[in-house]
Amino acid sequence: MKISLGPQTFLSPVPVMLVGTFDVDRKPNVMAAAWGGLCSSQPPCLAVSVRRSTWTHRALLERGAFTVSLPTRAQAGMADFIGLVSGKAEDKFAALGLTASAGEHVDAPYVAECPVVLELLLRHTLELGSHTQFVGEIMDVKVNRDCLSPDGLPDPVRVDALHYAPLVNEYCALGDFVARAFAVGKTVKRQS
Amino acid sequence: MKISLGPQTFLSPVPVMLVGTFDVDRKPNVMAAAWGGLCSSQPPCLAVSVRRSTWTHRALLERGAFTVSLPTRAQAGMADFIGLVSGKAEDKFAALGLTASAGEHVDAPYVAECPVVLELLLRHTLELGSHTQFVGEIMDVKVNRDCLSPDGLPDPVRVDALHYAPLVNEYCALGDFVARAFAVGKTVKRQS
Repeated sequence: MKISLGPQTFLSPVPVMLVGTFDVDRKPNVMAAAWGGLCSSQPPCLAVSVRRSTWTHRALLERGAFTVSLPTRAQAGMADFIGLVSGKAEDKFAALGLTASAGEHVDAPYVAECPVVLELLLRHTLELGSHTQFVGEIMDVKVNRDCLSPDGLPDPVRVDALHYAPLVNEYCALGDFVARAFAVGKTVKRQS
Repeated sequence: MKISLGPQTFLSPVPVMLVGTFDVDRKPNVMAAAWGGLCSSQPPCLAVSVRRSTWTHRALLERGAFTVSLPTRAQAGMADFIGLVSGKAEDKFAALGLTASAGEHVDAPYVAECPVVLELLLRHTLELGSHTQFVGEIMDVKVNRDCLSPDGLPDPVRVDALHYAPLVNEYCALGDFVARAFAVGKTVKRQS
């Protein structure tokens, strides 16, 4: 039995993305965003939606570059602080004792303490009402060495990123391996 | 120490979305998509990216409507099958013994066996290289009654959705509550 909740912003899971930019004075800033995701394979692109009222919105348009740093379970308080405070009012890197590392490929800073960082060049903007969607081309993915699998790929359990649960407003952890993609479906028995 | 992986499609977590459409002959079809996410609050919108070669791509443009059904941990095999087989070649609902329920608000079918379903009207398309991004306005969110919190909101632990880990190609489960959003950040001690 399904209950209709009406037109709500719900999906599960939703990522917790710390969006890093240099502002007009080249001061590093970072905001928290949960509306977004990967959106293209070739070129690899990620979309993130940002309200026009934010300090980051202006920086994104002016610099045309941003980073996405992924906080871990242990960094939930830090991520939430970043979501609560405006970069116009306060230097969040300084307030939290975080390291603003300059991107290697793009003119934007990232949170060095996060285990995964994406560097992006702005390619498209799309106005969507409350939010502007910024599509960035991923120029590099940087991962802490201890979060890599033996194959050198980012292991989701070792990365230990958060997800945000909309409507209930919770940060939650990610769980364990369930099945191999592009493989487990081959074992499903057809019913017709 | 961070290792550069280059321009890769990586983010964590990434959702597993089953995108339902009626094709030209009004046959229900469903595909698996992982590139996408919420993208606006007012109006509530979700974006999903689809390759032009898919059967769903044509149906999305022709019908202007789609659904997103969220599979659970127990439905990983079903979700992967849906990702491996084209709706041009086979009726995936019939093959898997799934129920194609017609949307209440939009002209698209959903997977009744999934605990969460979104109904969407197509509002924007954006060409991004390998994928077209389809932005839909969320007209309704339907949730199984036993997945709701006491407050009547979707509880991420009860919904038990999957996430897809790119590059390692794994389906993984979601984990437990970590902290309250818009709250835990207020307890963080400023360092400056």
